[in-house]
Amino acid sequence: MASMIKVGVLGAKGRVGSAVVAGVNAAEDLELVAEIDRDDSLEALVDVGVEVIVDFTTPNVVMDNLEFCISHGIHCVVGTTGFDDERYEQVRKWCAAADGIGVLIAPNFAISAVLTMAFARQAAPYFESAEVVEYHHPNKLDAPSGTAIKTAQGIARARREAGMEPMPDATEQSLDGARGANVDGVKVHAVRMTGMVAHEEVIFGTRDQSLTIRQDSYGRESFVSGVLTGVREVAGHPGLTVGLDAYLGL
Amino acid sequence: MASMIKVGVLGAKGRVGSAVVAGVNAAEDLELVAEIDRDDSLEALVDVGVEVIVDFTTPNVVMDNLEFCISHGIHCVVGTTGFDDERYEQVRKWCAAADGIGVLIAPNFAISAVLTMAFARQAAPYFESAEVVEYHHPNKLDAPSGTAIKTAQGIARARREAGMEPMPDATEQSLDGARGANVDGVKVHAVRMTGMVAHEEVIFGTRDQSLTIRQDSYGRESFVSGVLTGVREVAGHPGLTVGLDAYLGL
Amino acid sequence: MASMIKVGVLGAKGRVGSAVVAGVNAAEDLELVAEIDRDDSLEALVDVGVEVIVDFTTPNVVMDNLEFCISHGIHCVVGTTGFDDERYEQVRKWCAAADGIGVLIAPNFAISAVLTMAFARQAAPYFESAEVVEYHHPNKLDAPSGTAIKTAQGIARARREAGMEPMPDATEQSLDGARGANVDGVKVHAVRMTGMVAHEEVIFGTRDQSLTIRQDSYGRESFVSGVLTGVREVAGHPGLTVGLDAYLGL
Amino acid sequence: MASMIKVGVLGAKGRVGSAVVAGVNAAEDLELVAEIDRDDSLEALVDVGVEVIVDFTTPNVVMDNLEFCISHGIHCVVGTTGFDDERYEQVRKWCAAADGIGVLIAPNFAISAVLTMAFARQAAPYFESAEVVEYHHPNKLDAPSGTAIKTAQGIARARREAGMEPMPDATEQSLDGARGANVDGVKVHAVRMTGMVAHEEVIFGTRDQSLTIRQDSYGRESFVSGVLTGVREVAGHPGLTVGLDAYLGL
Repeated sequence: MASMIKVGVLGAKGRVGSAVVAGVNAAEDLELVAEIDRDDSLEALVDVGVEVIVDFTTPNVVMDNLEFCISHGIHCVVGTTGFDDERYEQVRKWCAAADGIGVLIAPNFAISAVLTMAFARQAAPYFESAEVVEYHHPNKLDAPSGTAIKTAQGIARARREAGMEPMPDATEQSLDGARGANVDGVKVHAVRMTGMVAHEEVIFGTRDQSLTIRQDSYGRESFVSGVLTGVREVAGHPGLTVGLDAYLGL
Repeated sequence: MASMIKVGVLGAKGRVGSAVVAGVNAAEDLELVAEIDRDDSLEALVDVGVEVIVDFTTPNVVMDNLEFCISHGIHCVVGTTGFDDERYEQVRKWCAAADGIGVLIAPNFAISAVLTMAFARQAAPYFESAEVVEYHHPNKLDAPSGTAIKTAQGIARARREAGMEPMPDATEQSLDGARGANVDGVKVHAVRMTGMVAHEEVIFGTRDQSLTIRQDSYGRESFVSGVLTGVREVAGHPGLTVGLDAYLGL
Repeated sequence: MASMIKVGVLGAKGRVGSAVVAGVNAAEDLELVAEIDRDDSLEALVDVGVEVIVDFTTPNVVMDNLEFCISHGIHCVVGTTGFDDERYEQVRKWCAAADGIGVLIAPNFAISAVLTMAFARQAAPYFESAEVVEYHHPNKLDAPSGTAIKTAQGIARARREAGMEPMPDATEQSLDGARGANVDGVKVHAVRMTGMVAHEEVIFGTRDQSLTIRQDSYGRESFVSGVLTGVREVAGHPGLTVGLDAYLGL
Repeated sequence: MASMIKVGVLGAKGRVGSAVVAGVNAAEDLELVAEIDRDDSLEALVDVGVEVIVDFTTPNVVMDNLEFCISHGIHCVVGTTGFDDERYEQVRKWCAAADGIGVLIAPNFAISAVLTMAFARQAAPYFESAEVVEYHHPNKLDAPSGTAIKTAQGIARARREAGMEPMPDATEQSLDGARGANVDGVKVHAVRMTGMVAHEEVIFGTRDQSLTIRQDSYGRESFVSGVLTGVREVAGHPGLTVGLDAYLGL
């Protein structure tokens, strides 16, 4: 029988981290051997032989976590936010110095959201028009969501690479805000609605037809299965990988 | 056998008017006896005994048309745009002087759009949140559509009458336009997309649930059956009626 | 200040009942004075002066509960299933003997579902075609859902009353089941899907247009606000009322 | 300047063929040099130097058309229905004997439908549940549509290849037809609705989330741009290709 992968969770007591803890515990092929939170020492990860860590902490501690883990030969699956090019570059350097260690940093682990973004990029060259509408609960602080912005950027890049012209839009008279936010030429609309969780709709149109790709998160644990996929596969992808889609062969 | 209603169409050669002409011709209980366009005299309506006219002309001639028809005892079904309170008041005066004549002025004759607006007003008091998303072909000049604005105004009025508080919205950080246009406190989003015709979605949310009312016009003739309903019923509604919903018992 | 309504919950430890308990506790105008479960005596309701009970128990005890409460002058809001014409008749008799007591029995308290059914009945006469698609989690035992069947029956009745012809359907060659279940001439389709909760879509079509009314329950507590509406209004509706829509003025 | 591709259309007077004729005429890089219908000789194709034919004829003549064109060195883009394994095999043989000739046979040229099928296959391994709902005008003779059946078969194959278990479904009590048609273990539901054209929705669900891919054809010419893509690329794909997706790099 294959031995189980030894997993440590950083940020284990947070809302997201505790869902990951439950998910790892429920998975037959994974063994939870360390739960680290704010004041715990990272040395414990080494002591118990952690092979893969999952990091859902905060932007101000995640880099220290990664430096420690990579240098101690531990693969990393990271959902913490706040990464920019400079941080990616630093992580790449650490990986280069630590032969064979894999790091997956993903802004979104919900498989339905990851596929929506991937399909949106693939579809983009075949449609004159594309817009994004996202729907979230009204307690969300930012609009549009980070996922919607990334989706729009992906569409914009695919259109540029295909040499497409700007989308047709004859609007002359408009109420302020009616046509949404402009993200690299792709319009993005954000709806805030009590009762909703997190939903994204990407709409493409061309002559006599449209294509809609919609993702619905009904609960707060839609990211768990994507995180577990990351844990299982990170050792097979040495170096830095950004985005879970790279693991899905898309 | 009941005799057929004698119908005249004003603006008969326009895109909309010619669809009405075809619709009247196809209806077994209606008889098309006059087709009037730009340079034709209105006297012909009287000569052939028109009972109901349908007016899809332009804002600058419609008032003359109405004055003539009402004063000659002809009921009027009007889809021409450009009416304001002053014009409505004038029409009411003409009707008061012409006993028993009915005038229906409606911004939208598509039965699915009319019901969407009516249901939106009915649902509004039961949901914390409400927003409108409309979708049109990219050649449309205004955003949002007049129908979407009216829908939002209806929701806003129903919320006011029910004494509701403003909708919850914690947005602190937003790209310009992301949260849509603000119509009396109701957010309205306008999507422009090649291939689409005219579509409106009204979304309501409250604890753990949402209600969506969506209207799709797939072709340019979605208004015809509503116009014919108007023609058949206008004689039974003397005076000015604004909006087809008053005829539907909603 | 208005005094609070004294509420008792029967089936207080069940999944649904405990959500009602939490809802009553959170409402400022309601006071929870009794929680009754399997082995508790109903006499306690009288002792603490309960004005309204909420019953989410089982078909085999609900009639005893209602007989006791009605005869003791306590209004009843009932979500327990298993009522048929015979049971309704019995409840009506009890109400007739207990002057001024109100009983509300509703198959569904989710406001979005109640409105969907009401709007479907209103829209039915204006569209040639109507079908229902419902979506639930895969642990559901029956297909279609009771709510979808009731929705279809309401559409069928509205079409009959309007003297409408059967819907057009030229299907000649069909895989078994493709066209759904036939409920009084209205086709109903049931989707079962991991991750989903409870969703219903009613679609109407006529020339060049369609109207879609969709209800989404994202969580298991979508019924709570409807129950509280019932509790607040039941005293104002003496006798038996079936269905929350009667309280909504629809 | 690149010379234009010389195109012949077979079935040029049919509804579909005449839309292709118009599309070729409107395309700046294509030259329509032959329109063939029922009683016209195929020799004309050779006489005017046709490079690519588009065939929207009938099952009983399409094989003769293909044999003639392939043997005369003309590439073929085929939307005619009625192909089975035996016919594909025959076409492959003709192609083998005619070095470098490309034949594209596609059941659907609407780019939105082609992408929907391709994305459905890609998404299938990541979701416990998958079902298909298709919507068409009520004059359609078959249910479900050929496209929906193909979509379901693609999902079933992708699930088999990923070693997935059957979908969860606890239904015990069901009205006949409620759960749809069973296509290789994937449930397919067919809605028939006046006003609609052709629409397909593929829904995937897994823990706390769902993914919906929806395709809407609003008009009867949604296939034209896909046909033109085929015409432009067929010479670059020698031998038989089944399905437009192979040309899209999906």
